Amino acid sequence: MSTNVLRTADGWWVVRGHRAIPVDTKATTTAELIADRDAVREAARSTEAGTPVADLAVLSPVTTPCRVVAQMVNYRSHARDSGFTGDIPPAFFRKASGSVSGPGDPVVRPSHVKFLDYEVELGLVMGATLPIGTTVDERDLPSYVAGLVVTNDISARDVQLTKTQFYESKSYPTFTPTGPYLALLEPEDFVHLLDLRLKLSVNGELRQDRTLADMIVRPAQALTLLARFQTLDPGDLLLTGTPGGTALKAPPKPVEKVGALLPPALKWKAFFKSQAKNPHYLHAGDVITATIATPDGRIDLGEQRTSVTDAK
Amino acid sequence: MSTNVLRTADGWWVVRGHRAIPVDTKATTTAELIADRDAVREAARSTEAGTPVADLAVLSPVTTPCRVVAQMVNYRSHARDSGFTGDIPPAFFRKASGSVSGPGDPVVRPSHVKFLDYEVELGLVMGATLPIGTTVDERDLPSYVAGLVVTNDISARDVQLTKTQFYESKSYPTFTPTGPYLALLEPEDFVHLLDLRLKLSVNGELRQDRTLADMIVRPAQALTLLARFQTLDPGDLLLTGTPGGTALKAPPKPVEKVGALLPPALKWKAFFKSQAKNPHYLHAGDVITATIATPDGRIDLGEQRTSVTDAK
Repeated sequence: MSTNVLRTADGWWVVRGHRAIPVDTKATTTAELIADRDAVREAARSTEAGTPVADLAVLSPVTTPCRVVAQMVNYRSHARDSGFTGDIPPAFFRKASGSVSGPGDPVVRPSHVKFLDYEVELGLVMGATLPIGTTVDERDLPSYVAGLVVTNDISARDVQLTKTQFYESKSYPTFTPTGPYLALLEPEDFVHLLDLRLKLSVNGELRQDRTLADMIVRPAQALTLLARFQTLDPGDLLLTGTPGGTALKAPPKPVEKVGALLPPALKWKAFFKSQAKNPHYLHAGDVITATIATPDGRIDLGEQRTSVTDAK
Repeated sequence: MSTNVLRTADGWWVVRGHRAIPVDTKATTTAELIADRDAVREAARSTEAGTPVADLAVLSPVTTPCRVVAQMVNYRSHARDSGFTGDIPPAFFRKASGSVSGPGDPVVRPSHVKFLDYEVELGLVMGATLPIGTTVDERDLPSYVAGLVVTNDISARDVQLTKTQFYESKSYPTFTPTGPYLALLEPEDFVHLLDLRLKLSVNGELRQDRTLADMIVRPAQALTLLARFQTLDPGDLLLTGTPGGTALKAPPKPVEKVGALLPPALKWKAFFKSQAKNPHYLHAGDVITATIATPDGRIDLGEQRTSVTDAK
């Protein structure tokens, strides 16, 4: 059974229903908290009444700086949205960990960004070092992954597509809302990963809704591929891709083929002109809710609720 | 006048001609060494005879982990090589700092990489925190940049182009040879930056040879653009792009336009078939030498000399 942990300015808490029990630990970073699992277990066993979760100002349970690595196009439904056909070579990119924000913090749109999009993603929080060259089998996952978090891989589509490298477009401050819970898993929880269902709504309208069964490269294989070139350490975060339903939809194929023949500046001008009519991009005042859980609630990462604001 | 610093397993050294004087410092990281500039100055003033540089086993003067950020297509000559026409939107990507290796360490080709390429680049080593939203004017550069290093942004072209995101292709261990010298600059040295000349040879054949005058986005503007989304800290490394002359050359325009209409797998198959005849990619046994210096030697980052080996 997984244990949900919250972080506030005062420290760490174990969640029990609507109440939270403080963890008696000196840990200030996520890596230190993961190393002090005994203190978490003790809080989970405590008979204290605790504090109402609703009274707590919850921070991201993933502390920074840490490595934030993300998988590109990793759900079949998102691949279709993005206009991919045939094989998709698995690829990774980095996000600046300065983009990590709390599960209730506003998402701030930089003034030069016109097409702001959402991407609910399951975040894997590392519990051990992943050395270069590691092969991670499904059964090894519990040795490397300590827990799971809800993340939103906020994306400035106009920056992302014109610059081709995803790094800037997904790295502005507040572009990785994370939490509320860090669900620390027991080894027997991992068999339920594929039952996890990701949902994201904007102003109450459901936009994304898929289970991990739609995933292309699953966590153990993703870590194996990543370990070809990148070491990870405890507390590092791997975002595992988003399912279909983002605001961005690739243009129909014939249009895209013609677009490929235009000089890039003209191609993007035409593309974003067409996107201007798309009502699904995020605007100031929008409220995004995101959840990830198994149907039986065995693993439930809580509800992330963020609102969109414009940079001052 | 800049001061050249070397690092070995024993610590830090100031270079004076062919000899090196040990720096009396507790610094173990590049950030700590930069903060202990007085110790560097003291070693530079020392009357000790020192040790022959040739006797030292020199490590990268940039210690890891640190952030390694790189500028995409940032010399006009490289833009032409890469088939860009018209405006190029300035873009950044990340390299894993686990790719940083010493200035004499072998570059190891992973067995799945067929098209290994070189990119000599000027590396800026940060001396102060760059907060989000900073505007860096030319005259502010000395407040943020502590020094310069030679870097080689080794690139697995087959991985880079098929995955579209550059992160993996440039992040394998040994893919960022760095050094030999960290040139710590005085404020008055910065006016000579544009005179720096980058040269790279393979087996004695000159492949890259340009000054910074060919650069598109210069360091102050690059830091301003980066600070839109990314904080940097002392000891972090910014690679500022490579000039023309890499093994990779874009195919002629008509071929590329036709290629744009093919499914990606077919397009890349055709492209790499054509590249197989290109003799300029790196192979086991090749020796790469890279230098960056002003013509008068006022700033001289030393010679980096690496050989290529195949992964076992």
